[in-house]
Amino acid sequence: MSANSSSAALAPARIEPGDSYVQSFARGLAVVRTFSGEAPAQTITEVAERAGLTRAGARRILLTLQHLGYVEAEGRLFRLTPKILDLGFAYLSSLPLWNLAEPVMEDLVADIKESCSAAVLDATDIVYVLRVPTHKIMAINLGVGSRLPAYCSSMGRVLLAGLPDEQIDARLAASDLVQRTPKTETDPTRLRALIEQVRVQGWALVAEELEEGLVSLAAPIRGRNGEVVAAINVSGQQHRTPPVVMLERFLPKLLAAAHQISSMIGGAK
Amino acid sequence: MSANSSSAALAPARIEPGDSYVQSFARGLAVVRTFSGEAPAQTITEVAERAGLTRAGARRILLTLQHLGYVEAEGRLFRLTPKILDLGFAYLSSLPLWNLAEPVMEDLVADIKESCSAAVLDATDIVYVLRVPTHKIMAINLGVGSRLPAYCSSMGRVLLAGLPDEQIDARLAASDLVQRTPKTETDPTRLRALIEQVRVQGWALVAEELEEGLVSLAAPIRGRNGEVVAAINVSGQQHRTPPVVMLERFLPKLLAAAHQISSMIGGAK
Repeated sequence: MSANSSSAALAPARIEPGDSYVQSFARGLAVVRTFSGEAPAQTITEVAERAGLTRAGARRILLTLQHLGYVEAEGRLFRLTPKILDLGFAYLSSLPLWNLAEPVMEDLVADIKESCSAAVLDATDIVYVLRVPTHKIMAINLGVGSRLPAYCSSMGRVLLAGLPDEQIDARLAASDLVQRTPKTETDPTRLRALIEQVRVQGWALVAEELEEGLVSLAAPIRGRNGEVVAAINVSGQQHRTPPVVMLERFLPKLLAAAHQISSMIGGAK
Repeated sequence: MSANSSSAALAPARIEPGDSYVQSFARGLAVVRTFSGEAPAQTITEVAERAGLTRAGARRILLTLQHLGYVEAEGRLFRLTPKILDLGFAYLSSLPLWNLAEPVMEDLVADIKESCSAAVLDATDIVYVLRVPTHKIMAINLGVGSRLPAYCSSMGRVLLAGLPDEQIDARLAASDLVQRTPKTETDPTRLRALIEQVRVQGWALVAEELEEGLVSLAAPIRGRNGEVVAAINVSGQQHRTPPVVMLERFLPKLLAAAHQISSMIGGAK
């Protein structure tokens, strides 16, 4: 795993761009991604529309996926099967921190009574890879695999801060800097300065830039060569845990947990 | 989602078996699945060996996956990227119970202080789709996407009990009935009777058949037509919560939680 995980996608691959195999494979994965909470079961026509394929093309891919056990059919409707989770599981179980981080995060949650999550960077997004929830009503429900924009999330700023300068600039330039709340910082120069500050201080606090009322504090998990491989955070509600409370009560514990996880994967001095 | 999720894989698909597209796609997914905790980063040669491909074939697929952003290269080593989680996320977010069940399960965990999970059936396995851990040392760590054999797990027996009789027999016949502990039931006829009992009583208790010391209690989640779409369980350690304690203290609460989740997806009367 690397915080720099999507650089491969940006680098030119040593295969022909119009390669029919690449095309077919990409289309197959695109079909998988047409399924969602809004479209849990789809007809061939619906899949074709959502994936931008012909009806014949969508049919061929759906039958292939069905043949391989990744899709099941009930009448005219197709659904994904749980076998599709094997693919993500291959990724998660290959993360060095995956098994090691969870007990540390559970201790932290038991102590501070706020949720704790771990995420990695993928292009301009953070992707949740672990989550230890606590029983609180949250406005956003972020399971493993969920994405959030990096520029306005605490884990995102920690992960961006772990990149070389030119990469930070490239990622910010590629980001859609949306004013999600009145407090969201969307100016690239000021964001750059905030990320620089995160790099120096070793943690990030983001208060109500992602969502009104949401305060989040994140710290880096470091790999063997000191590189930032993931981030963990704790988040809470402004009215219950204002930023100053977060910093006083949670920051030392979050940093200790991050350091402990980094040690486990050989990344803390 | 359906407990009968792998029937599509068993049914003859209306495509040619030797279809080159199916072959290519299957190989691509097989390459993804060669990555794991034991093999988080692999060379082309290692991938070729694990996937049973030629070196040239493995290279072509790895470069395709890299081109699509699902794999990244660092020197000679290839790794999966978090983008692969999008595929599993498409499945999870398409489960009707996914967002709805979690708060109910969190309430249950807060009440009984034992972990609660949800799983669905895939052929002869159960696959975890949701998990609310509690802070306890567990011998087995089961994240979303983890698999266990259905025949010897409480959720597995609940899910099998939801199938038509001939399907139960077929799944048991296809199962590798291993004596995992001295208590594991491996006789198909007696397993069939246990599953019948689960169907009648509406819950399953499995004590130390999966792993010594582990006791688990499961109940079905029902969909709109009364069909079993998933199972939820609570599990604990024999020495802390012997089966009789599980039944007295946890069963009514587990059944109430299962009923509440079923109601949310339109499946409880």
